Order: sequence, then structure tokens, then C-alpha cells
Amino acid sequence: MAAADLIELWRGGMLESVHRGHAVICDSKGIVAAWGDPDAMIFPRSSCKMIQALPLLESGAADAAGLVPRQLALSCASHNGAAIHVDAVDAWLKARGLSESDLRCGSHMPADKDENKRLTCGGISPCQLHNNCSGKHAGFLTLNQHLGAGPDYHDIDHPVQQAAKQAFEEVTQETSPGYGIDGCSAPNFPCTVTGLARAMASFAQPQGGVRGQAMERLVQAMCAYPEMVAGEGRACTALMRAMGGRVAVKTGAEAVFIAILPDQGLGVALKIMDGGTRASEAAITALLVHLGALESGHPVVGKLLTDPMRNWNGIAYGEMRLAAGFPR
Amino acid sequence: MAAADLIELWRGGMLESVHRGHAVICDSKGIVAAWGDPDAMIFPRSSCKMIQALPLLESGAADAAGLVPRQLALSCASHNGAAIHVDAVDAWLKARGLSESDLRCGSHMPADKDENKRLTCGGISPCQLHNNCSGKHAGFLTLNQHLGAGPDYHDIDHPVQQAAKQAFEEVTQETSPGYGIDGCSAPNFPCTVTGLARAMASFAQPQGGVRGQAMERLVQAMCAYPEMVAGEGRACTALMRAMGGRVAVKTGAEAVFIAILPDQGLGVALKIMDGGTRASEAAITALLVHLGALESGHPVVGKLLTDPMRNWNGIAYGEMRLAAGFPR
Repeated sequence: MAAADLIELWRGGMLESVHRGHAVICDSKGIVAAWGDPDAMIFPRSSCKMIQALPLLESGAADAAGLVPRQLALSCASHNGAAIHVDAVDAWLKARGLSESDLRCGSHMPADKDENKRLTCGGISPCQLHNNCSGKHAGFLTLNQHLGAGPDYHDIDHPVQQAAKQAFEEVTQETSPGYGIDGCSAPNFPCTVTGLARAMASFAQPQGGVRGQAMERLVQAMCAYPEMVAGEGRACTALMRAMGGRVAVKTGAEAVFIAILPDQGLGVALKIMDGGTRASEAAITALLVHLGALESGHPVVGKLLTDPMRNWNGIAYGEMRLAAGFPR
Repeated sequence: MAAADLIELWRGGMLESVHRGHAVICDSKGIVAAWGDPDAMIFPRSSCKMIQALPLLESGAADAAGLVPRQLALSCASHNGAAIHVDAVDAWLKARGLSESDLRCGSHMPADKDENKRLTCGGISPCQLHNNCSGKHAGFLTLNQHLGAGPDYHDIDHPVQQAAKQAFEEVTQETSPGYGIDGCSAPNFPCTVTGLARAMASFAQPQGGVRGQAMERLVQAMCAYPEMVAGEGRACTALMRAMGGRVAVKTGAEAVFIAILPDQGLGVALKIMDGGTRASEAAITALLVHLGALESGHPVVGKLLTDPMRNWNGIAYGEMRLAAGFPR
């Protein structure tokens, strides 16, 4: 089955661009609704960080280290590298007797405007704490201390990544055919869009036990600290705030987006095939409104989907539109 | 006819993302080769600036104002807002007795790193000279002085835009069904991908007369001053430099790209339907290599298409691939 048209961009009353993709909504029994090909294989990228964080909790490492919900949210984050994120990861590592040099995620300039300006104008190079995945890696390091394994926790054969792989295959209920190296150098395992939505449905309706409790704590942490999961101006943070902490959402590179809806026991996963983030943000917004979790009149819906698009003079030149059949 | 898969992104030996689009190669007789739907309607956006500049030369305004080739290149530019661009437009306007406030393109932060840093760290706001279209607008203003029309030269009914529309319809050999407002507030007229490629073939083989001479001068100016058409680090500038001034290329927003090949009498136009610039740059690179205008071993081909993609640690995680059947 082919990808479906999901998000269109119109200019002067004419279609200018279109984004295709796949989207699936699952409950505990399986697919509730789907667009495109629910069996399409995708890389979840950072959208599955709450899955990668499961071994941190299930192993007892998180409690042994006394991690608090704000840190659990950071372990699921693709953050802006703002001061609040950098400082939190730095403090976390120091409390574990670790440092920035123990990270294996690499460095990049932060998305946060203030921190980016501070580094740019100060002639300061970014460090690994600025990497949007540094919270996830702090979680990997904390699990690694608990396991007492070697320093290269990002290697595919390392116990930390093997634990992440096992958790991933269990919650997606799929055997991963291989893996890719993510931007932060950790392995990323492919799955079907349905497998990812199925996993998110399980986070939405935890079945108790060690795994259920871990899922519940991670979702609650993401919902309680949306600013730690992404940052100011970011879709994940704005959407979670707009939904009053009742829904957890997470973006992934190359235009993946997931949502966890505990009130409805639903999980959502989508992938825009061209990797266009503007479309994955618009599509998850449309699905959240469609499911009644997000008010269509909320400013974030305008910003990500319904507001007229304006040029450098503020002139409205066009708009985003939902393709026919999406989401209804 | 549907868009065709053109550019793929692979990670860990698996397809992660794909870009679809339309591409057409024309000579003076018509279509030589096509991928996707050659009749698809698109907005050329900034890829047609050399068409919008035709009235500037054909009216005699350019010569009356003593414009030199470097300025003609700037009139076709989507520049980086670097000092060389800002200073050149500023000097051009002053020489005409005009100023930045006569522009109607609006302001945005420049893409040029040095100028962006100067403004950011100095707490300085960008002005309209920084707008990537300020050279085109300096051309509009110069034509407008010659015509003696009103100050709002960007309005659809203004003689400057009506002249641009007439030139556009003549060289595309199509009647435009409407128009859209571009980022710089000037009207942008839609045409088929074939119409745009046909227009570029006419620039590649000018037929003499006032129009032919104007086309020849604009193409020569773009090829002679590639740094004025875009800027350091930009695909247009790098590709034109790599081809030694024998081919003119121009990008447009929402992933449009054109090429003018005088040696072969060919014109190329392509549009990536999702608006992904990484794919329009890769696709035009593939077509230029395919046509023998660009050496496959040139570093710019590696940068835009064939080099392994590396993450923050420099680890090669994947690569771009040409979709089956593109370009051969």
C-alpha cells in the first residue's frame, strides 16, 4: 500500500506542495484507524525515547540513582539545549560521579535561541550537554552504572542497547530486521507504523507489573514536565501544555510523531515520508483535534496547522490544508 | 500522471525517507526527457527571476541606468544577505537616488553566517537589503523609474508586474491561470514544469533580437558572478562554479530548481512536491551529471548527493540514493 497525501500547502488558491505519509491509531486490541500503509517500515528515531528509557526504570537503576520525574522527562527528551536542559543534564551526571566526557552523543549547536546566541556571540563551542539527546544518554549512563558494563554504551552489542532493543521488540511486538545509527550514535530499530502505534497504546494503558509501572511513570513525567521534553517554541512542549498534561507527544527526526492518550487508551504514530517536520507537526495536531484531545480553537492549532501563512511583510499568501480523507 | 520518486534517503541499509517530484528537460523543439508529470502546475518561485528581469533589460532601463553584469546577476539572485550582497544593493539604490525604504520586499535575517552573527551579536535588526530578493527588487525599482509608475511596484496591477507577467507567459508559452504572493510580496505566476523547462531552453538558445540579447546578457551575468546569485555555501553558487560558468542554475522556494545549458541548448526544470530543498539540490545535481555538464567526481556532487551522511560524531549512518529510473 502506498503513502497517502496528508498535508497540503496552498498559495494563491492553488496547490503548491504536498506531504505524503502513514498514520495509525491503535488501542489495546489493535488498529482503530489508519492512513497510508500501516505496515510500512519506519525508523521511529527520537519518537521512541520513552521505549529506550524503559530498561532504566525496569532495572531499578532509576530508583537506585534517585531519579525524579523531571529527570525521567529529560530521559525521553529531544531538548533545545537551553540552559534548563544543559544544567539539568550536567547536574545529573555530576550526581552520578560522571561528566560530559562520558557522553557518546556528540555535540551540536543548541536550537534554543538564547543559548545559541550566548555560544555564537561568545565564540564558545557547544558541548555534548547541548546535544538534544543528552538526557537520553544520561539515562543510558545511569543504566550502565547499574549494569557495570563498559564505557561505550552506545554500541549495538552493549548491554544497554541490547536491553533497549529487547524492550523495543516487546512493546512493538515485532522483531526488528536490523538497525540504523541515529544522530546521537545510539542504535535505532525500525518497526512498522502499526508497531509503533501499538507500543504507544500500551503506554496509554499500562497493564501493571514492572513494565506497566515504568510506562506509567514515564508518561506522567513527560506530561508533568513538557518543557524538559523539548523546550520553548517547540511543538511537543506546546502541544502537551495545550492538552493540560493529559496527553504525551514526542517528535522524531525525519518527520515521525507519536501520541499517548491515557484517557482514551489510544496510541498514535505517524511518519511523513519526505521527512518534513512542518507536516508531521501539522498531522499530529490534526489527529489530536480529531480525537478530541486538543481544542481546534487553541492557538497552538493555529500555529501548527490552521493559521494563514504570512510572508516577510505579514501578507497572508496561503494556508495548510488537510488532504482529502485525512483525518476523516 | 503522478509525481515520481526521485531522491531516497537510506539509513542502516533501509529506506528511511523519499522525495517525489517532477522533472523536465527541454530543447528548442520541446521535451527531451521527463520524470513524473511534465504537465504538473507549479509555482516557479525564485527559480524564474531571470524571467522577471527580462523587462528590466528589454525596456532599456538597465542600460539607461548603466547596470553592469554584476548587478544583472544580483537582479536574478536569491542571495545570502552577505556584506557583498547588501553593499551592492545599497550602492545600486543610492546611485538611482533611491534607498532601502523604497524596497517592498520586507526584512528577514540573512543566511550568511558572518552577517547573521554581526546582526545577532550586535542586537541589530535586519533591513530590507538583507532580504534574499533585494537584488530582484532593485531591478524592479530601476524598471519602475524608467516607466515612471507608482511606488508600489510589487502590486499585481502595477506596470512592473504586468510586464513581468507578459514576459513570463511569452517565454513559458502558457497563459497563467492566476498568481500567488511570493515571500518577497511580488506576484509569482504558476506554469507547468514543461513550461518552465521550455522557458529555460529559450534562455539556453536565445533567438536574437531584443529578447534574445536580454536572455544572453542575463545568463552570462549569472555565470560570471555566481557568488552574487546566491552566496558562499549555497548550491547555486557551488554548482555554477563547478561547471566553470558554462551553465546557469537557480533554486526556488518549495524545492524548485532550473538549469540553463547554452552549450547543449537545453533547459531543465524540476519541482520536489514536498518542498524539500535537500532533494531539489540532489536532483538538479543528478541531472547535471546525467547531462555531462558536471563531473560526477566533483566535490560539490559529493556534498549535495553522493557523500555518505554523517552524524554528530562523524559516523556515516546512511546515504542519499537516486530512485529507480531517475535520471536513467
